[in-house]
Amino acid sequence: MAQQERAIRTRHTILEAAAAVFDERGYEAATIGEILTRAGVTKGALYFHFPSKQALAEGVLSEQFTVLYMEPRVCKLQQLVDLGLLTAYRMRRNPLVSAGARLSLEGEGAAVLGHQLITAWIEGVEKILLEAKECGELLPHVDPAESAWIFSAGWTGVQVYSSTLNGRADLEARVAAFFEHLLPAVAVPAVLGKLIITADRAAEVAAESDRLAQQAEYQETAPSLAG
Amino acid sequence: MAQQERAIRTRHTILEAAAAVFDERGYEAATIGEILTRAGVTKGALYFHFPSKQALAEGVLSEQFTVLYMEPRVCKLQQLVDLGLLTAYRMRRNPLVSAGARLSLEGEGAAVLGHQLITAWIEGVEKILLEAKECGELLPHVDPAESAWIFSAGWTGVQVYSSTLNGRADLEARVAAFFEHLLPAVAVPAVLGKLIITADRAAEVAAESDRLAQQAEYQETAPSLAG
Repeated sequence: MAQQERAIRTRHTILEAAAAVFDERGYEAATIGEILTRAGVTKGALYFHFPSKQALAEGVLSEQFTVLYMEPRVCKLQQLVDLGLLTAYRMRRNPLVSAGARLSLEGEGAAVLGHQLITAWIEGVEKILLEAKECGELLPHVDPAESAWIFSAGWTGVQVYSSTLNGRADLEARVAAFFEHLLPAVAVPAVLGKLIITADRAAEVAAESDRLAQQAEYQETAPSLAG
Repeated sequence: MAQQERAIRTRHTILEAAAAVFDERGYEAATIGEILTRAGVTKGALYFHFPSKQALAEGVLSEQFTVLYMEPRVCKLQQLVDLGLLTAYRMRRNPLVSAGARLSLEGEGAAVLGHQLITAWIEGVEKILLEAKECGELLPHVDPAESAWIFSAGWTGVQVYSSTLNGRADLEARVAAFFEHLLPAVAVPAVLGKLIITADRAAEVAAESDRLAQQAEYQETAPSLAG
């Protein structure tokens, strides 16, 4: 294993450990000591990659987007629905994603990190809505920036309610219902009628995302023919 | 001032002090000592009304509904919009309401109190939507229980985003945009076209609510003719 590749793996191991600790304890109560123990790496390795607790938290927030990767869709509003469903699916199963929610919503962490994550989400959704507008999928009066804000904020509220009321057991179903409630305000009828918005779709999108990640990893580790 | 009336005022003074402290510090960091100092009441008086920190927090959560009182509307979906706008308006100005948000969203408080407040909100919104259904304001496929969940959760997400991004400066405007996004999915067109959904309306609804509160207080303190 090349040195660079080893560094990438160590970094990933640290971020997974940090995510687990942040997810369980929140930002204030998490300690670098516990993250070290959980990751099983040396103090030097950890500080080489992340000089502070804040750097670790910021690393977790960026890293979550790697497990939310999807192929772009021809229908951009379907891509938005699929992203919302995939995030719900991961939120229940991957601490990188659920730690992000806790870090950006609670206490000291929220002040430092919430702004950053929320802004990244709104920008990501706005990008998809701008593409949807280009493709003629949006009703003429829709302002992609405003709708991106409302979609992102509303999704977060759904996550908070599902988390508080039943430990996220119904998250995919509630996210599907959320899209059913919001999309009639932005989608042209011809597109609205064709969107697939079901809780079951979340697992399918996640399986596709997992396959893509495995392929990418295979391509990275396989000897390159191009040399 | 009659003894009972004095007790009601003391209780209210304590809850306002508790709300301010919970709002600033969160549930864990708030102390009964600071609430005592802020309220300027005796320890005996405080413990007479609220035997524990949790009782104080629960008192704050119930009390917030007193400052969200409105006359019922003929159009039930307008009532829902007005309640959402009034809550946004109060959330920026009245610690009884903003403390409720912090108590039910963060840390230890959320586990104990979030469930309670969230359930109360969903039930309140469902009641309005059931009335809207009776009045023929809802599209035939709408399930009031499901929509109440989505409206309440989404509203909370809007509050969280506005709070994190700009200290709630744009909360009324975002809540108005939120309703513009959600109502097309539930309202029959004839009702949808007549709804007044503007940020400015928040202040008008609040002024009306203040007048009602003043009248109620006057009636309580004035000598009763029937008595």
